[in-house]
Amino acid sequence: MEIDHNFYMNLALQEAWKYQVLTYPNPAVGCCVVGKHGEILAVEAHHKAGEPHAEVNALQKAYYQLTNNSEILELFTSHDIHTFLIKNHNNLFNECSVYTTLEPCSHVGKTPSCANLLSSLGVKKVYVGANDFNEEAAQGNEILQNNNIEVETQVLEKECSDLLLPFKNYIKGRFVFFKWAQRLNGTFDQGSISSAESKKQVHLMRDKCDLLIIGGNTVRIDRPTLDARLVNGKAPDVLIISREKEFDKNIPLFGIENRKVFIADNFDVMKHYKNIMIEGGDILYELTKDFVDLYLCYLAPKIGGERAFKNIDDELEILNADKAGEDIIMWMKKAQK
Amino acid sequence: MEIDHNFYMNLALQEAWKYQVLTYPNPAVGCCVVGKHGEILAVEAHHKAGEPHAEVNALQKAYYQLTNNSEILELFTSHDIHTFLIKNHNNLFNECSVYTTLEPCSHVGKTPSCANLLSSLGVKKVYVGANDFNEEAAQGNEILQNNNIEVETQVLEKECSDLLLPFKNYIKGRFVFFKWAQRLNGTFDQGSISSAESKKQVHLMRDKCDLLIIGGNTVRIDRPTLDARLVNGKAPDVLIISREKEFDKNIPLFGIENRKVFIADNFDVMKHYKNIMIEGGDILYELTKDFVDLYLCYLAPKIGGERAFKNIDDELEILNADKAGEDIIMWMKKAQK
Repeated sequence: MEIDHNFYMNLALQEAWKYQVLTYPNPAVGCCVVGKHGEILAVEAHHKAGEPHAEVNALQKAYYQLTNNSEILELFTSHDIHTFLIKNHNNLFNECSVYTTLEPCSHVGKTPSCANLLSSLGVKKVYVGANDFNEEAAQGNEILQNNNIEVETQVLEKECSDLLLPFKNYIKGRFVFFKWAQRLNGTFDQGSISSAESKKQVHLMRDKCDLLIIGGNTVRIDRPTLDARLVNGKAPDVLIISREKEFDKNIPLFGIENRKVFIADNFDVMKHYKNIMIEGGDILYELTKDFVDLYLCYLAPKIGGERAFKNIDDELEILNADKAGEDIIMWMKKAQK
Repeated sequence: MEIDHNFYMNLALQEAWKYQVLTYPNPAVGCCVVGKHGEILAVEAHHKAGEPHAEVNALQKAYYQLTNNSEILELFTSHDIHTFLIKNHNNLFNECSVYTTLEPCSHVGKTPSCANLLSSLGVKKVYVGANDFNEEAAQGNEILQNNNIEVETQVLEKECSDLLLPFKNYIKGRFVFFKWAQRLNGTFDQGSISSAESKKQVHLMRDKCDLLIIGGNTVRIDRPTLDARLVNGKAPDVLIISREKEFDKNIPLFGIENRKVFIADNFDVMKHYKNIMIEGGDILYELTKDFVDLYLCYLAPKIGGERAFKNIDDELEILNADKAGEDIIMWMKKAQK
């Protein structure tokens, strides 16, 4: 195993993917801070819009590693952590390298700029995966260089750009991902498939999505609630794709307060939403394949069931694979042919 | 992400799984060497019986990282690396920690003992995953402790024990694993499924196996060669499971020199072999489930095909998942219910 720049950037990527979609409307970003002897001080990610950026979370942890001063661990807002670090850094970071999947932000918004923070701390070098294309936040690399911080760009650039795919679509106006859970032999029928950890992850995503699309047959058979109760989250609006408009309104999904439910044989209502999750099988896969941006599969190591994807011919590319309890979670996009 | 003892042991595990089965008749072992500041100096594995153990490969790399003396990289035998390190270590390793998935060997065989080497180098601490149960090689921990090396055992013990499952079976007399390649939707019919990297890995395994078991229908339809040509390896003997004993002898697998081919409706011939790979579909899965030790699935991110595992109800546990080119490779065992 090579312990090189790609290794550290890859750690940052792995951590960032754990929060994919959950950072909406912000990008998923990961950051790894490496000390002067090559020791890994921190690998952290951005968790949630309004909370600290990946760099801030990583620098907070790295400061603690370097000083053993736990005072900094009691700070939670980006503003407080920035202020503390700028006041107390004592040139501790002068020999540290920072690996960040996305160009550090230059934009002073809900949080101060990460490029300014890194400059104030005087880190030795910043390795950047993908450059920012969001005009508000770009120019971070320039700020660093103007402050005599060495910057190396395009480290695992392809992988870091793939991580940003949802964000690129948020900016364009809409991101759509297709999620399904299946057994190893491809089936998705008959009862519980996923691990408790997978289910919790899906509820975290529902909490961040504004629209959830599901097929009419699934609603009739499974009688789902489609909320985010496992994480005390909000339930997204629901679009049921069905030619037949009649549904038993005792099906739990209809009973959620402050939720809109649409029943339609088309996807027109999507135009009012920006972060859309489809939970479907082969029929919805076919119907939505022209506008789905990413695919998310929870794979349970079980064999059984009957019904699997049929009459579909497709090739995907795995962007990230990780464990989710006993399952494997895979983020994929359509393969370039 | 926590950068702790489990993190370093996990790196050793990841590297070791890449060589699973390929180390036959030795165990798959991984080793991570961490320097005095917490920097990762090396993550290496045992590659092949007769070649250096994981600890030796890792210490060789770590020595180079610490000294930049490339002389050591030109040594390939365990004996030469041991000799060089003992002569030149200069107490460089006194502050280093070593994470090894298996208790360092005490047995002086094809290679000198790793426990003695670690003792001579005077490393600070050795973290051990699983204790050795192979009487010839055990007592490594004791040797270390008698030489005042601190030893911490049972670090990720469950994961490190799972890694040894094939080896435990080699010792008992026989290891059998069931390998298949499939698409995301569970199908395994119709043409090429796996990536070039996956195919190469399978050929490396065939080279190490002494018997390959395959179903008669697959032989008739696919007309395979079942050799290890992609890695210039040896072709294993083949057992074709078939009630019908007639086969077209022009099928390439029959034309390999020095290979025995058995055609039988039972598995009796297995008793003469120790490292057995089954390449099969659902029929062989059912027929062999009482004696298969591990399952190995190459999952290609494609959707298509028709035929998938059917009429099987089983629950597996994923022991390791990794990328293999565009595919995912998963090692699994039967789940404890």
